[in-house]
Amino acid sequence: MQKINLAEKLSTFTAHWSPKIIAELNGQHVKLVKFRGEFVWHHHENEDELFLVVRGSFRMELRDRVVEIHEGELFVVPRGVEHRPVADAEVSVLLFEPASTVNTGSAGGTRTVARPDWI
Amino acid sequence: MQKINLAEKLSTFTAHWSPKIIAELNGQHVKLVKFRGEFVWHHHENEDELFLVVRGSFRMELRDRVVEIHEGELFVVPRGVEHRPVADAEVSVLLFEPASTVNTGSAGGTRTVARPDWI
Repeated sequence: MQKINLAEKLSTFTAHWSPKIIAELNGQHVKLVKFRGEFVWHHHENEDELFLVVRGSFRMELRDRVVEIHEGELFVVPRGVEHRPVADAEVSVLLFEPASTVNTGSAGGTRTVARPDWI
Repeated sequence: MQKINLAEKLSTFTAHWSPKIIAELNGQHVKLVKFRGEFVWHHHENEDELFLVVRGSFRMELRDRVVEIHEGELFVVPRGVEHRPVADAEVSVLLFEPASTVNTGSAGGTRTVARPDWI
């Protein structure tokens, strides 16, 4: 039961697309992740996923539109909805999602992080 | 499925100790709340509660210590743990917690908001 400073936690890693767990509550994980470039199209069968931009901005590509998400903004992708985050410059994002959520969801592949580290 | 700007949502209300719902996912609510002054001592029987400071700072009083929580910091109060938020100046806080969570938990009383508004 200690407070968590987001900037401090973000300073401990540099890898992109590799979420790190910072807190757990009610079966949900709070994670921090850095995006740069394009991710893979995927969806999550059973998990809604929240993205809150801590620093920078990115765009969430959906099949029917694109949403630009800036610092201080959040976006929820409901389960089953295909999405692809794309960041032209590095962005730091807080995720809130069930502990069962895997970053690449339905897509799998080399960018899958099955068991994110705690930081 | 629209993005949510925290500052914009915060500008829509002024009341203290009255959480507003801004998103729902996986049976959890994301809320915004403004604190000023002292709240009531309480705990939540079945819900862990996350506090993320969006603007300002406050202190979380626990029975055995006090934790100062500043902008960009978060704190999780596990179920069953008695706590009391106190803010000398107004602070804006984002909450993540199960949809079942009532602000005053075990304490009840006049500051209870049984059904928070969506904003």
